[in-house]
Amino acid sequence: MPVRGRNQSAQALSVHGRLFLIDCGEGTQYRLVEERIPMMKLDSIFLSHIHGDHVFGIFGLLSTLGMKGRQTPLNIFAPLNFGPILKFFLSYYGEGLAYEIRYTPLKMKEPETILETKSIAVQAFPLNHGIECFGFRFAEKEPPFNVHKEAIGRYGLSLTEIGTLKRGEDVIREDGTVIRADEAAYKPFAPRSYAYCSDTAPFPQEAEWLRGTTVLYHETTYQEEYADQSALRHHSTTLQAAVLASEAGVKKLLIGHYSSRSSEILSYEAECRRLFPETFATSDGDSYDI
Amino acid sequence: MPVRGRNQSAQALSVHGRLFLIDCGEGTQYRLVEERIPMMKLDSIFLSHIHGDHVFGIFGLLSTLGMKGRQTPLNIFAPLNFGPILKFFLSYYGEGLAYEIRYTPLKMKEPETILETKSIAVQAFPLNHGIECFGFRFAEKEPPFNVHKEAIGRYGLSLTEIGTLKRGEDVIREDGTVIRADEAAYKPFAPRSYAYCSDTAPFPQEAEWLRGTTVLYHETTYQEEYADQSALRHHSTTLQAAVLASEAGVKKLLIGHYSSRSSEILSYEAECRRLFPETFATSDGDSYDI
Repeated sequence: MPVRGRNQSAQALSVHGRLFLIDCGEGTQYRLVEERIPMMKLDSIFLSHIHGDHVFGIFGLLSTLGMKGRQTPLNIFAPLNFGPILKFFLSYYGEGLAYEIRYTPLKMKEPETILETKSIAVQAFPLNHGIECFGFRFAEKEPPFNVHKEAIGRYGLSLTEIGTLKRGEDVIREDGTVIRADEAAYKPFAPRSYAYCSDTAPFPQEAEWLRGTTVLYHETTYQEEYADQSALRHHSTTLQAAVLASEAGVKKLLIGHYSSRSSEILSYEAECRRLFPETFATSDGDSYDI
Repeated sequence: MPVRGRNQSAQALSVHGRLFLIDCGEGTQYRLVEERIPMMKLDSIFLSHIHGDHVFGIFGLLSTLGMKGRQTPLNIFAPLNFGPILKFFLSYYGEGLAYEIRYTPLKMKEPETILETKSIAVQAFPLNHGIECFGFRFAEKEPPFNVHKEAIGRYGLSLTEIGTLKRGEDVIREDGTVIRADEAAYKPFAPRSYAYCSDTAPFPQEAEWLRGTTVLYHETTYQEEYADQSALRHHSTTLQAAVLASEAGVKKLLIGHYSSRSSEILSYEAECRRLFPETFATSDGDSYDI
């Protein structure tokens, strides 16, 4: 429910030159304008489930992209039951849209890769919200090796040899010289990952599916004292999210999707931090580097 | 299209203890919260047409009213082609709503009274927007007379005699004394009216249908230099709204629904004022007494 200064669910994720939108609550197109996030560059939209606070902004956003003259296709990954909603919307408002909407219905029971590029892979997996609902995990692939600049000069490396080292293989020259990859080359970064879990109650495989995620966003609709309501409504409490973050071995936990009853998000953070110190309570407009 | 600091169409009208909402663009429920307008007290919603910038906020608003536990019926007056939209919404999101939605489809060709109470009457009338679109006029009825307090003492008026004077009739006593209504009673106010016209190009009957309106809100999507585009898209220019206000003899003209291209709403106001000085360019959150 609307709360002053707290909008509904939507996150923009910028990764290797691609711009993703995760969920699209009412007002998202306005938030994109306010945060100067270029909506025309959106590549794909990922919708977790069809509850209004996660999707009612999609109609305005799709319309506006059309009015702005978008021609590039747009991917939408969303549960199967979003299909009729999209179809109805297009039957009423689709006439002027000059771009293709490529809708992929989600219905997996286990994590599945739904989008893959040279540098990243996106997985969707089922959540536990009493309605079709999915989480998303965006993971960088192992990057190719970079070759140390000084090694190129020192060994007088040819383009072919550089290519060999970039694949992580040693160079063996005709005269028997060996140039070792682990000495001349290096990984520019360790692969990072980001996962989004909203809305869901805890479920047995959750920690396993999120194992080793760098940054995890997880809903904490309720504080511990409302654990009963949380269970009833298929949501998670602060403690449950912190336990999960700990068990899954994530580096950082971002929390959000606070009950409209609560105005004190710092107490959510405090409750999580007792168990998982690297917890951060997100607010509208926050931006995090992963 | 979304513009920083400028939300889509929605107006709240408070009249004789009733709270009306006119149009419901995306984000309206948030704007109601921000402006501290009690959404649970909404009595009726009037939708001019189904374009997204006038209706995409209705889904979130209806859902929120349900979650807040509304049980009082809610009237929605909207064009005929809103019917399937409402039906589809209710089929997906209506399960939890404990209040009745009383939808009245609009399809008149001439002004028609669509809602009437003891003190006001609401008329709808067709606009000219290339799609089913309606304007609304909210008019107070002639109030009953009030009796001057000092006259009650001076004449020793009975309750029956006061009732007679309140109907505007003279009191004639058995002894022949005449107590004249135009001396002992008075009208507490002259009936006021408010009209809402968005979106529309000018049309022949518009001034006649708005004749004598106290305050008129009329769209001015375009300034004069874009008159061609305005005609093409069935909108009105500043000058057209000012001419209308003048011909209809309204007291005050409020303008809005500015093109997303324009950031200078004061130049809209200036253009109207050349012809109709009592013009005011509306901004988000403005409040006017009628």
